[in-house]
Amino acid sequence: MKTFSEVKNNATDESRFSVVYRITCDNKTKVEEIAKDITFEQTVEVPADCIPEHVLKSGIIGNVESITPSKIINKYDVAISYRCAITDYAIPQLLNVIFGNISLKNNIKVIGLDFPGSYLDQFQGPKNGIDIVRQKTGAQNRPLACTALKPMGLSVLELSAMAGAFAKGGVDLIKDDHGISNQPFHPFKERVSKCQEAVNRETARTGKNTIYCPMVSGRFDEIEEQVAFAASAGVHGILIAPMLVGCDTVRYISEKYDMVVIGHPSLTGTFFNDPDHGMAPSVLLGTIFRLLGVDINVFPNFGGRFSFTMQECIEIACALKDPLGNIKSAFPCPAGGMSFDRIPNIAQDYGVDTVILIGGSLMQHGNDIAESTKLFMNKIKEQFRQAVTD
Amino acid sequence: MKTFSEVKNNATDESRFSVVYRITCDNKTKVEEIAKDITFEQTVEVPADCIPEHVLKSGIIGNVESITPSKIINKYDVAISYRCAITDYAIPQLLNVIFGNISLKNNIKVIGLDFPGSYLDQFQGPKNGIDIVRQKTGAQNRPLACTALKPMGLSVLELSAMAGAFAKGGVDLIKDDHGISNQPFHPFKERVSKCQEAVNRETARTGKNTIYCPMVSGRFDEIEEQVAFAASAGVHGILIAPMLVGCDTVRYISEKYDMVVIGHPSLTGTFFNDPDHGMAPSVLLGTIFRLLGVDINVFPNFGGRFSFTMQECIEIACALKDPLGNIKSAFPCPAGGMSFDRIPNIAQDYGVDTVILIGGSLMQHGNDIAESTKLFMNKIKEQFRQAVTD
Repeated sequence: MKTFSEVKNNATDESRFSVVYRITCDNKTKVEEIAKDITFEQTVEVPADCIPEHVLKSGIIGNVESITPSKIINKYDVAISYRCAITDYAIPQLLNVIFGNISLKNNIKVIGLDFPGSYLDQFQGPKNGIDIVRQKTGAQNRPLACTALKPMGLSVLELSAMAGAFAKGGVDLIKDDHGISNQPFHPFKERVSKCQEAVNRETARTGKNTIYCPMVSGRFDEIEEQVAFAASAGVHGILIAPMLVGCDTVRYISEKYDMVVIGHPSLTGTFFNDPDHGMAPSVLLGTIFRLLGVDINVFPNFGGRFSFTMQECIEIACALKDPLGNIKSAFPCPAGGMSFDRIPNIAQDYGVDTVILIGGSLMQHGNDIAESTKLFMNKIKEQFRQAVTD
Repeated sequence: MKTFSEVKNNATDESRFSVVYRITCDNKTKVEEIAKDITFEQTVEVPADCIPEHVLKSGIIGNVESITPSKIINKYDVAISYRCAITDYAIPQLLNVIFGNISLKNNIKVIGLDFPGSYLDQFQGPKNGIDIVRQKTGAQNRPLACTALKPMGLSVLELSAMAGAFAKGGVDLIKDDHGISNQPFHPFKERVSKCQEAVNRETARTGKNTIYCPMVSGRFDEIEEQVAFAASAGVHGILIAPMLVGCDTVRYISEKYDMVVIGHPSLTGTFFNDPDHGMAPSVLLGTIFRLLGVDINVFPNFGGRFSFTMQECIEIACALKDPLGNIKSAFPCPAGGMSFDRIPNIAQDYGVDTVILIGGSLMQHGNDIAESTKLFMNKIKEQFRQAVTD
């Protein structure tokens, strides 16, 4: 990854990246107008007659590369290219160019992003990626298992006892519930220290490496201190929600700290719920979050408490894992009301490179959390022994 | 505003705030279920049988305060209260409690927020507010006038000449186009220094105070440096887009720096476009952005290039200006394709405490930008002389 000054030295690069917008419109001619509007709205944002010749010639205005009728009636896939340099090689302005102002319009859905390798090289992406997370947890040839510390409001003693029990059960990853932050009844530093200590006590006995990932959602001026504190307390992972703390905050932390980063989709939902406007889940929770540096990304699996379709979920997983320049692959983590019964399906739908998150239903399974966790682990291992044998 | 440690000392406070969700549903009984689901989803996020007695009694789970059929068929206004302490008195977790996970559901629209005064006292809100922005610009008894430096891609020389011309014309506020960031062809520091110098040269002659507000959209680890640099270059305002750089970033900067803060709605659009799901524009662009500390908030006016209704726009303006504990009022700034002809209407719709932003159409008005700006100023002054006389 290049430092900022190197990027600036590279600024003569005229290369372009493309965004594919699916535009809903009942009139082909009008689609051309809308496409042209987007090229101005997302860049120069003035009428053409206000633009000096040298700006017109600079390639700064977006360029409509193609308009293709999609298989769905009245929907057209419009590829628009932008000059890479206008994004400032930075996440906030990249988001602004892709969808900033036109988010305030209608019937425009971002369904794809296509970056040249030289552009992707400006970003680290996942520091660990699938391979190093496997090394760190020692989990090979099977999906990883993740559990969640909850509910908010337990005492630090209760939360740390639960963390210990999960570790005793041999789980790969433990995350905080994403609503557990720095509340006065379980303040961040005390809670994180105690939970990590409890995990350490158990892993010293089991020999299994369980990574505890506390939620970091502190203020702008606290969040780095939280991560640094966690690192000093022996923590090797974090849970973080880009839309709560700012997308570039995640990019910064994932670059600077050696943490397994689990991304959380809190507050992203309005990008997805209108099929005609926003971003496809695979774009935001797949490509963009991966660019920010998540090693594992949580999303609501189909058939749980939320409303993604199977296709949307599989597309997220592909966007996290498929080749993307030199950017490492990240684990999909389908979640949101998953139960033991779903493990075979999840394994089948997403394949071996998946993190299976079981939260509430693990707690419902029995009073002995360590035993329930062992059962969870065995279910996964058994499933994948079968898969290897089949 | 309290410091973080004071907040923690105040943590025994059991006070609650309320969110009003408009739920779309064709069945009253089902609305009750959905409301109860929200109270769990946004807090403990586990089934009831996993929650220990002491958590149940702690008031941590949301509480359905009322369910009222709205005037619109199949829509119910559901007020749910949450214990203030679960928000950690911090913006990221506040957003998470209000709408984090349920953003991923459907048919839930946040239409109102109701905070106790003690909670609002944890936030500074606008540092200047309407009164101090008026003092700083010397503009009394009329709407303020704002123009925009654009398009992206002009040279620093061209941008600074334009800034000078706007100042010569006597405008109150000049903002960067929000897409102008730190691109290699007009890097932040050089551009901001030169534009401020050009403004200073003119205001030294006119005696009029024009505030230049550069866009700050730098990376997590650059943005504070950008603001501090701007301050050192004599800049007295900034333009900032909370959803691009992170909401709490804006809160932090507005608290720490003595800047007139103009908020920009880039990337917020998906909260609004589905009438049944998301947030009302007045909630996000009104109450929440005001809590973050914007002194002036830009939003797309009805009848321009975007799709807000007149009612939505007026509600944003009210949410920015109406009483909100000890939080100061902020200026609404209707924008997005406004022209000279619209000035009388804008003045009439929003009243005297408004910032009128004319961008591209000022540039279209004539070749002499200073003259066009004077005309813009005169239009506003004339309108309000009439209003005072009427």
